[in-house]
Amino acid sequence: MENDVIFIGKKPTMSYVLAILTHINSGHDSVTLKARGMLISKAVDISQLVVRKFSKELKVSSISIGSEEITDKDNNKRMVSYISIDLKR
Amino acid sequence: MENDVIFIGKKPTMSYVLAILTHINSGHDSVTLKARGMLISKAVDISQLVVRKFSKELKVSSISIGSEEITDKDNNKRMVSYISIDLKR
Repeated sequence: MENDVIFIGKKPTMSYVLAILTHINSGHDSVTLKARGMLISKAVDISQLVVRKFSKELKVSSISIGSEEITDKDNNKRMVSYISIDLKR
Repeated sequence: MENDVIFIGKKPTMSYVLAILTHINSGHDSVTLKARGMLISKAVDISQLVVRKFSKELKVSSISIGSEEITDKDNNKRMVSYISIDLKR
């Protein structure tokens, strides 16, 4: 089963907007954006750009936040927050 | 009626954690965190610190996101995203 998740990273904002629109235009009814740490703000920006400017069909259907433990490159464990934003037709 | 909103700004994260705990310990059952732009990530971090580390009572009860037009100091209008996170006992 396809998961329909787009992870928000360091590419330009418009790359993700395009990825979302492409995904929806290829016949899917929903897509989930996920982002961690400082990229959470970018994920919210991207969701708003999509629903306000680029798609009349998509709405934010649910939002969740949480935190998970990650191990960084120096082998230290730390908590990092994440957001998950569901967009639905 | 009291609004119980804490706006997340540039103070240290722990200042806001303390403000939330103080608010709740003074007899309120809920508090709302609001943040805009890059401070959205910080608001999520603060909410997670509170519910995971500092309060066994508080839970995230709802989350909303949106965008609003602001006028910057050069009189340019631009859209900025925001998040609103409700914490409840």
